[in-house]
Amino acid sequence: MEMKKLSWITDHIPASPIRELVPFAEKAKLNGVKIYHLNIGEPDIETPDVMLDALRSWSYKSVPYANSQGERVLLQSLLKYYKKLGFGNIGIDNLQITMGGSEGILWSLIATCEPGDEVITFEPFYTNYISYIMRSRARLVPIRTRIEDNFHVPRKSIIERTITKKTKAILLCNPSNPTGTVFAQDEVDMLMQIAIKHGLYVISDEVYREFVYNGTKPYSVLNYLEKYPEGVILVDSLSKRYSLCGARLGVLLSQNKKLMQIFLRFAQARLSAGFIDQHVAAQLDRVDDSYFKGVIEEYDKRRTVLVNGLRKIPGVVCSQPEGAFYVIVKLPVKNASHFAKWLLTDFHEHKETVMVAPATGFYATKGLGKDEVRIAYVLNVGALERSVEILSKALKEYVLLSS
Amino acid sequence: MEMKKLSWITDHIPASPIRELVPFAEKAKLNGVKIYHLNIGEPDIETPDVMLDALRSWSYKSVPYANSQGERVLLQSLLKYYKKLGFGNIGIDNLQITMGGSEGILWSLIATCEPGDEVITFEPFYTNYISYIMRSRARLVPIRTRIEDNFHVPRKSIIERTITKKTKAILLCNPSNPTGTVFAQDEVDMLMQIAIKHGLYVISDEVYREFVYNGTKPYSVLNYLEKYPEGVILVDSLSKRYSLCGARLGVLLSQNKKLMQIFLRFAQARLSAGFIDQHVAAQLDRVDDSYFKGVIEEYDKRRTVLVNGLRKIPGVVCSQPEGAFYVIVKLPVKNASHFAKWLLTDFHEHKETVMVAPATGFYATKGLGKDEVRIAYVLNVGALERSVEILSKALKEYVLLSS
Repeated sequence: MEMKKLSWITDHIPASPIRELVPFAEKAKLNGVKIYHLNIGEPDIETPDVMLDALRSWSYKSVPYANSQGERVLLQSLLKYYKKLGFGNIGIDNLQITMGGSEGILWSLIATCEPGDEVITFEPFYTNYISYIMRSRARLVPIRTRIEDNFHVPRKSIIERTITKKTKAILLCNPSNPTGTVFAQDEVDMLMQIAIKHGLYVISDEVYREFVYNGTKPYSVLNYLEKYPEGVILVDSLSKRYSLCGARLGVLLSQNKKLMQIFLRFAQARLSAGFIDQHVAAQLDRVDDSYFKGVIEEYDKRRTVLVNGLRKIPGVVCSQPEGAFYVIVKLPVKNASHFAKWLLTDFHEHKETVMVAPATGFYATKGLGKDEVRIAYVLNVGALERSVEILSKALKEYVLLSS
Repeated sequence: MEMKKLSWITDHIPASPIRELVPFAEKAKLNGVKIYHLNIGEPDIETPDVMLDALRSWSYKSVPYANSQGERVLLQSLLKYYKKLGFGNIGIDNLQITMGGSEGILWSLIATCEPGDEVITFEPFYTNYISYIMRSRARLVPIRTRIEDNFHVPRKSIIERTITKKTKAILLCNPSNPTGTVFAQDEVDMLMQIAIKHGLYVISDEVYREFVYNGTKPYSVLNYLEKYPEGVILVDSLSKRYSLCGARLGVLLSQNKKLMQIFLRFAQARLSAGFIDQHVAAQLDRVDDSYFKGVIEEYDKRRTVLVNGLRKIPGVVCSQPEGAFYVIVKLPVKNASHFAKWLLTDFHEHKETVMVAPATGFYATKGLGKDEVRIAYVLNVGALERSVEILSKALKEYVLLSS
């Protein structure tokens, strides 16, 4: 008999638009071209030594399953972390360790959404949200934010207009990947009012919490734990904060007891998160404040160099990133995907070029973001200055070619 | 407005029947009772030194995302492993690293099943299969196997009778957790014939491959990679083989190109499996054959001590485990769950007792397995001898009390 069909999802789960550029980047490298990677959001900062020491002094004789909820030492360290942030009203039972923030978002959606339910999020958004929402068989309802507004949320009536009987949750990324926007208290208050009025879950992805500049303060949904205990779901991650991307550790935090019970069952079904990773990360309460201070100062320098440089390029519109380490940039081109590919296949400046992420992958609405790219400032200042120079020359050449 | 309802799955995902006993075990421990844990399948064997050395000599300065498909060094080591097993027809493109075997089974089901589709599996089965099938919104169709047959599969006509238009896959665990059954070539051939005839996917969970005794050989579905390239999905894991349960590393292996592409997209959406874990596990090609030989000999001794001991207890029926490190045991009691709880709450023998896993959690059909428990032989021979002695005395007392 003919092979049975694969599921619907296999025909719809998107390929990463960044991923599609990888073969061209590899070819350029083979041709001796050096590539400045502005396309990825992986910090180049070193992991705190006290964490790496936990590896180097490893004394366990085997690598057993960890506790399904999370290793006690890590949970305790996290309680101290949240207390220091001003949230002393959190107990061990409000925490569930996940394998990265990714698993946390996926579980939040699966626990709240029936197939066909709707999840509101602000576009441009983190690409993988599409995959997670698809896995829960819910539908993503995008609300557009604009570069002219630095990608802040639109007014209340525009948001409320999108709510239907099927709306289950608002998914927020604060500070935001890919825009670098930090949502202030008045915005979060407004979103929470809407959520409370309509009984919606608020899933807040705050994995870039520490990465804020110029005294900006992200307003955490943790401030609503008591006012809206059933509806607030915080998604956190240790990846960016401690340069532990490959440790695959995140946190789900909620005061909704039923939800925490379900998260634990999801966790038990996949047994545990990594044992080694958790014992490395458990050192987080021993990381000195000066580590963060140094990291943030470094990113702030990079941000300034990048944004100032980009704004000097004719025709480029660059939003003002307030947090995370990304910025969305509007280019004087019709098709930024084509330009991003061209940078790898047809251009080099003294055998050097840059790789950027076309922004269409961050939008759900067709046609949006076509002339935008996302740039991550995870390279040192010198490399960023050179990248801006290359981008400037490339744009000049590309615009000439296209006219 | 009232809070929106959580999803259907939150009312149906089962709690672990073993988990429910944990508070009673904790209380017994507080009362000074020592517990022999026959309820869990975590090897007490040490991880190979060459792997632990990779931790102790850690030299990376940060913990970056790993490659989404898997770290090249680990994939290369795995190719050597499969080649040594006799399967040289496997390339890098046929492999996808997963976070444990759990993720592999979940992804296989999500990629093959629409909501409402049916997945055939043999009961008793590994409890978590229920959660994975539920997450894909498919339906588990159990085919009963019996202790009298050592839990081998029934004849072809009985299996074919369960196939409907909605059947998408057969999910097999070989060697089997929880029964210890090793499916021989004629059984696997028969299942493959059925699958090929009806165009079904065969998802074969072979994470206990090396754990076989008395010269028994498990017949891998890898033997069908060429005969049925579109339909065979192997789920593998490094957890048990190298005592790396907490490293959360598994493998999905298939020659179905579309499926491998989808698995990669699932992987990209959660970025990567653990970087540290993969660099530890990549040493697997340097683990000496003597390591396995020692491990298997040790388990074989334990198996003999346990099975011979249990069979001497009046009224106990013990199947003959051929692989893995579990055995299903029929007890002379009406309600094995009650007995398992009683062992922790009301019984001790010189301040010692045993903890066993009630078998109802391994069955989907209501009423089956009520007088059965699963026992894992992951303790040393001395501890197992003492456990059998305790169990024997406990049964005597319990049967007297109940009559």
